Amino acid sequence: MNVNKKAGELMNKLRAEVPLVHCMTNYVTVNDVANALLAIGASPIMSDDCHDVEDIVSISKALVINIGTLNERTIASMLLAGKKANAMHIPVILDPVGAGASAYRNETTKKIIEEVKLDVLRGNLSEVSFVAGLEVSTKGVDSSDADADKDAVAIAKAVAGKLGCIAAITGAVDTVSDGKRVLQVQNGHPMLSKVTGTGCMTSALTGAFVAVGEDTVYAAAAAIAATGIAGELAYEAAKEKGTGSFRVALIDAYSRMCENTFMEMGKIEELTL
Amino acid sequence: MNVNKKAGELMNKLRAEVPLVHCMTNYVTVNDVANALLAIGASPIMSDDCHDVEDIVSISKALVINIGTLNERTIASMLLAGKKANAMHIPVILDPVGAGASAYRNETTKKIIEEVKLDVLRGNLSEVSFVAGLEVSTKGVDSSDADADKDAVAIAKAVAGKLGCIAAITGAVDTVSDGKRVLQVQNGHPMLSKVTGTGCMTSALTGAFVAVGEDTVYAAAAAIAATGIAGELAYEAAKEKGTGSFRVALIDAYSRMCENTFMEMGKIEELTL
Amino acid sequence: MNVNKKAGELMNKLRAEVPLVHCMTNYVTVNDVANALLAIGASPIMSDDCHDVEDIVSISKALVINIGTLNERTIASMLLAGKKANAMHIPVILDPVGAGASAYRNETTKKIIEEVKLDVLRGNLSEVSFVAGLEVSTKGVDSSDADADKDAVAIAKAVAGKLGCIAAITGAVDTVSDGKRVLQVQNGHPMLSKVTGTGCMTSALTGAFVAVGEDTVYAAAAAIAATGIAGELAYEAAKEKGTGSFRVALIDAYSRMCENTFMEMGKIEELTL
Repeated sequence: MNVNKKAGELMNKLRAEVPLVHCMTNYVTVNDVANALLAIGASPIMSDDCHDVEDIVSISKALVINIGTLNERTIASMLLAGKKANAMHIPVILDPVGAGASAYRNETTKKIIEEVKLDVLRGNLSEVSFVAGLEVSTKGVDSSDADADKDAVAIAKAVAGKLGCIAAITGAVDTVSDGKRVLQVQNGHPMLSKVTGTGCMTSALTGAFVAVGEDTVYAAAAAIAATGIAGELAYEAAKEKGTGSFRVALIDAYSRMCENTFMEMGKIEELTL
Repeated sequence: MNVNKKAGELMNKLRAEVPLVHCMTNYVTVNDVANALLAIGASPIMSDDCHDVEDIVSISKALVINIGTLNERTIASMLLAGKKANAMHIPVILDPVGAGASAYRNETTKKIIEEVKLDVLRGNLSEVSFVAGLEVSTKGVDSSDADADKDAVAIAKAVAGKLGCIAAITGAVDTVSDGKRVLQVQNGHPMLSKVTGTGCMTSALTGAFVAVGEDTVYAAAAAIAATGIAGELAYEAAKEKGTGSFRVALIDAYSRMCENTFMEMGKIEELTL
Repeated sequence: MNVNKKAGELMNKLRAEVPLVHCMTNYVTVNDVANALLAIGASPIMSDDCHDVEDIVSISKALVINIGTLNERTIASMLLAGKKANAMHIPVILDPVGAGASAYRNETTKKIIEEVKLDVLRGNLSEVSFVAGLEVSTKGVDSSDADADKDAVAIAKAVAGKLGCIAAITGAVDTVSDGKRVLQVQNGHPMLSKVTGTGCMTSALTGAFVAVGEDTVYAAAAAIAATGIAGELAYEAAKEKGTGSFRVALIDAYSRMCENTFMEMGKIEELTL
């Protein structure tokens, strides 16, 4: 079946099931994350305290961990919630925001990967490359080759294989892999990088789509295409105005998205390797 | 006097007095809460640290406590600020976000209710039902009957009577009671549930209206009608666009609201019991 | 050279260099701060944990400290980041939100000023007056004269002289001084005070302009004029709608701003004293 049709059907399923998505996310973009989830048809719940997260994740259909504004209190909660999600077979999505930019973010990413089994790792090329390098280096292999290569397909496959999860690298072209299969998404618009939080929203939507999808690699690709398509629609609506209007139009586009949107605009492709 | 006219007059008073409203609220919707307060004519101040809240609440005309993203540090501050507000006869509004969804939220709600005298409890039916059940159960009564009933009028009256405050339950129809009198508000639009924070904004506006109103039950009803009316206006402005535009139009509607808006669109009714 | 032309050229430089600006800011307006920085051509990074801030500030071109929702954890991080910035000659901007409103904000402002060398102090008249008074009073002088005076030019000059930094006081007319030179900015619109965060955004933009400007007093004035001009443009776009649309139009205006905008609309003036 056509992968864009599959994404469209998943969109329908999401709107029918309204999955509760537990987000442990940064305070910069948390409001947009909540509104993006509502707009796409999911139900967001935010909770980051160690006394609260296990109860909340237990009633959720997915857990999204985003380390954008991490601190000791929330890192402890992330590990607690991640382990609980693992124990209850609730999918976990990690967005390692800024991995590679500070030792603390690096250590935290490492700790989460070691203690929590991920279903999806979603980041930009440099963040996911860091994770690739980290894994490689723990095995004594020089990570500089992988870093220099900057081949999203190779990195996605490598990380996915190592962590046993789906790796989703977003950029001008987005790449999603489970280590064997590779999907690419050609949707998107450069203006998506001119508002904060489009990566965070994509990670949260990944939680929503994975919550209702049977095959995580297609669900992650559908989520990423949702943002890409919304970016294209938002650009059309806001190009004369500016990035403030673009951000509003992005949420508008999510909220109007339906099966047909993916059929008509989706540019997800499964690579033949 | 007609209750909608009363609400309109309170709207005028609010714009004339510009009350400072101290909000201890969640980081998900805090920006919308601040902008909603500014739009309706109040002045917001956010502060949640134990070293800061007593000074801040002392210069404020109302305190709004919202437990949406609670943690140990902020809970301690909430209790401190609540007690200071009580001592200074500054009205306290509690929004027990997610009460019923986790043990920590339940315990926190219970602790606040025990240690702080509320002027208004504002939540959805399940949150206020939890408080009703909680109170009942502490008296050894099975709370399941009350929960099953789901009669907003009965629950509002019961909670108001028990806590000696105004109970405001928002939903398709909103119910406000002081234990004896009951007001219902028929304003609103389903799209209000498709953006995050409309409940939080309503609680904050309740603080603003109560700060300037002599009779809290009418002030709370006016605040709730303000959101309902703004939702109707925002839907008209944004229905072709989506939920991003709806959120913007909601703040727009608050900012244009005046006495006449309530006279022409208000659907507050005092029930004859 | 004309000061408005200078500001326009700085605008170009900013868009060419895309400086990374590290913000330690309040959770109320942090999203608008990030989007304003992106819109004006900078790159925002938010980080407030003591384990993270030194690494992050080290890769940044400016540090913006805003005490709007301070607490013990973030204050410690602010001092750490500020000292690191000083050591690395990275400019530091302080926005003492609410200084004068609580003892904790006063003490924190005092501590930051004592331990961190500022490049720019940006606040409203009452916040900067507090700092002026504070400094005076620590020298045993009665601060009430300075407070009563409320002469923005005198206060800006005094504070700048005492702290050895640029003082920028925003209001109906904005005043920027390095203790000797004084610039005033006549741009702006009253609606800027009807949305939260316009002060915070101005402080963050000050970081961005100072990061690329050689003469800090002109860079600070350019940043303040950017908000003033954006406010004028946003008012034109949103006056029929309300403050929600005004906020969106403000970011739109930042994102479209270029050299010509300053040439045509800039009202920065260097006073002849």
